[in-house]
Amino acid sequence: MAKKPGIPKGTRDFSSMEVARRQYIMQTIRHRFEKFGFHPIETPSFENLDTLLGKYGEEGDRLIFKILNSGDYLSKADEKLLNEKSSQKLTSQISEKALRYDLTVPFARYVVMHQNEIDFPFKRYQMQPVWRADRPQKGRFREFYQCDADVIGSKSLWQEVELVLLYDRVFTDLNIFGVTIKLNNRKILAGIAEVIGASDKLIDFTVALDKLDKIGEEGVKAEMIEKGITAEAIETVQPLFHFTGNFEEKLDKLRKLLITSEEGKRGVEELAFVGKEISRLGLKSAKLNLDVTLARGLNYYTGAIFEIGAPDTVQIGSIGGGGRYDDLTGNFGLKDMSGVGISFGLDRIYLVMEELNLFPTEVNTASKVLFLNMGDQEMSYAMQAVVGLRDAGIKTEIYPDKAKVGKQFQFADKKGIPFAVLVGSQEIEEGKFTLKELVSGEQTVLDLQELIKKLK
Amino acid sequence: MAKKPGIPKGTRDFSSMEVARRQYIMQTIRHRFEKFGFHPIETPSFENLDTLLGKYGEEGDRLIFKILNSGDYLSKADEKLLNEKSSQKLTSQISEKALRYDLTVPFARYVVMHQNEIDFPFKRYQMQPVWRADRPQKGRFREFYQCDADVIGSKSLWQEVELVLLYDRVFTDLNIFGVTIKLNNRKILAGIAEVIGASDKLIDFTVALDKLDKIGEEGVKAEMIEKGITAEAIETVQPLFHFTGNFEEKLDKLRKLLITSEEGKRGVEELAFVGKEISRLGLKSAKLNLDVTLARGLNYYTGAIFEIGAPDTVQIGSIGGGGRYDDLTGNFGLKDMSGVGISFGLDRIYLVMEELNLFPTEVNTASKVLFLNMGDQEMSYAMQAVVGLRDAGIKTEIYPDKAKVGKQFQFADKKGIPFAVLVGSQEIEEGKFTLKELVSGEQTVLDLQELIKKLK
Repeated sequence: MAKKPGIPKGTRDFSSMEVARRQYIMQTIRHRFEKFGFHPIETPSFENLDTLLGKYGEEGDRLIFKILNSGDYLSKADEKLLNEKSSQKLTSQISEKALRYDLTVPFARYVVMHQNEIDFPFKRYQMQPVWRADRPQKGRFREFYQCDADVIGSKSLWQEVELVLLYDRVFTDLNIFGVTIKLNNRKILAGIAEVIGASDKLIDFTVALDKLDKIGEEGVKAEMIEKGITAEAIETVQPLFHFTGNFEEKLDKLRKLLITSEEGKRGVEELAFVGKEISRLGLKSAKLNLDVTLARGLNYYTGAIFEIGAPDTVQIGSIGGGGRYDDLTGNFGLKDMSGVGISFGLDRIYLVMEELNLFPTEVNTASKVLFLNMGDQEMSYAMQAVVGLRDAGIKTEIYPDKAKVGKQFQFADKKGIPFAVLVGSQEIEEGKFTLKELVSGEQTVLDLQELIKKLK
Repeated sequence: MAKKPGIPKGTRDFSSMEVARRQYIMQTIRHRFEKFGFHPIETPSFENLDTLLGKYGEEGDRLIFKILNSGDYLSKADEKLLNEKSSQKLTSQISEKALRYDLTVPFARYVVMHQNEIDFPFKRYQMQPVWRADRPQKGRFREFYQCDADVIGSKSLWQEVELVLLYDRVFTDLNIFGVTIKLNNRKILAGIAEVIGASDKLIDFTVALDKLDKIGEEGVKAEMIEKGITAEAIETVQPLFHFTGNFEEKLDKLRKLLITSEEGKRGVEELAFVGKEISRLGLKSAKLNLDVTLARGLNYYTGAIFEIGAPDTVQIGSIGGGGRYDDLTGNFGLKDMSGVGISFGLDRIYLVMEELNLFPTEVNTASKVLFLNMGDQEMSYAMQAVVGLRDAGIKTEIYPDKAKVGKQFQFADKKGIPFAVLVGSQEIEEGKFTLKELVSGEQTVLDLQELIKKLK
């Protein structure tokens, strides 16, 4: 008895409809990336293990999928480690390759390896799957696509302006209106840390502050104190507890708050530049929001930090994010390369579009017409038309077997094919084809040219 | 000192130009697949190890990349195997997933898992990477794409007709004219084996016969005898040594030769059907050839066998192949599912197109126009036009930093950007833009609408 087949947990099969919809999202993003002057690259699915290890923290190292060496992989393994069953220590002896964990580290490795062929500033985009040995849960998979655009080799703030515009245009193209582009700056966070005199508590501080809507001012303050932030420090940043207003008003509050921090002031001016230019240019459908609690990837971002909130009508959290990092390629020996990049969360964007019913009806893979099979002689006659329709760009299928007509119609129906063509001896004699519209049942007798015209 | 980064052997980075060209090939194939009524599916990059093992022979099992289990993978490993350093036996204890080795086995697994959602006959296509731990060499990689189209659930020979047409149309669309679609049938090979009375020698026989051009009739016969095929048997199939003529003439020769083999005769009639229908319909640019030496994947093909020879002007061998298999899904518990499918060799098609210079010039990712950066004020003015051009569909870049104008022109030049826009105080005052065509050096002063019109 054959075993019932399955797939590894956290992975997915995609049906035709799902592939068509995912392709639609990716093509829309791809086209916008290219209009903004980003160029595609692709890197291998697996990298040398030492390229990836140590770049994502200890937790990240654990979540990297390692590939077992080929052949007699134990022959050079240390016998002591085998006897001790030291899984962790043995890994590097029996595995020298690992699946890509994100697109950023491979990009850095690519830039360093190809630095002599690249004209900087280098604007690249990349859309490829990544793999993480995370515990699978709703909306979190072990294999998923990342769609990243990064510029490397320029510190210009115009890049930040460009990336805000890019987010706005991509979501507009996808008909996802009303996303929030949340903007912050690492230097503002550093400024806040300076002002409260507690750099090491910064993450605790922002995590607590982010809960303002849920647990209220007193709740947040209680949590901060519990985390070891002094009441005095909290008092200094009191304006952050009533941090309302538009972009400009928020900037003004920050200017006052961070007046004693040089770095904080630089952060405010950077945000001010982006805010001013975006306000001049206008956004099509997104809104820009200054969010001082935004701290994603605090460890490697050094300037702007972006995060995209889905439209208010959908409860799904962030559907994109990014930021500026000043030393992406240093790990691989190329210093002083500032970069800034953003990412689109394909799976979550898919869920948003599904929930809001935003996929255009023409995004599907159904054929336009099915030629019924009434026998070899009829099919032999019909094939001329099949070929002609396809060459005219019409998705055309034949039913391969001579089955009952009812079964063939049912097949068209199930697959969402709107038209069927029938051929009998009379059609062959007259050089015609009978076209049936399946929903209305309407039948017309046409020659090949008329058929092409009708279906095109 | 950072270590100089590299990538695993047998893998590749793809530059923007390469990605664009590969996408062009894949999109062309994809569009034709869809016009022929094939629908896309995608399967996970890794499968459960037991889904893949035993499907590709002993050599195949060795070449499958296994993924090391996460966490403390040695904890449940057999201590005896560890002490003995039995790599092969240990594998299944420390690895339960493996990278996809081809698209056919995952497809079979998909069909069985989703049989209740699928309307048969099911026409699917799939374009995804596969991985093999093969020794890398010129043109052979450890990660490469396969592009497959298969129909499952029908024995109709119209499918074979369709697949010949599909090959012809895809290569015509790619401007690769003059490919040879080689056709054979497993039943003819079985018939020949019956006639020579040596089924077990069939592969030796076809391999030797295939060398006719190179080593001549006597050489081939010598090799056959060396392999244990009797002189008497060779005498019986003498016509195969002068197997010339067109499709019909070759069929006639086979009809006579295989007159004593029921299976052989069925093979001839199957080929005759496909040949007759293709000859009625005509091919656009390919030629159909009956090749009795064609025996690829002999083990699982049961009917038609296809192989595509590149145009004569290129020395590259096969650029595609496929065939009919009568029991693809039996391994996973679904019996009597006949399928037939073909595959396109992306990497080799790429090499053919490169060698024959067939990539359209518009297949590249270069932007159309670069806005030079003359300072923040000028850029702030220029951005309105940048946004307008992009929204009109024109690939538009800005130079992010205020650098020397010469350096900015050089950047455009290196990247193959044909136009530059300059903005100074005069342009701002007049609401204009100076457009420079980089090759001719010609400059014109235009307003935004004129600029869009000119660059569109």
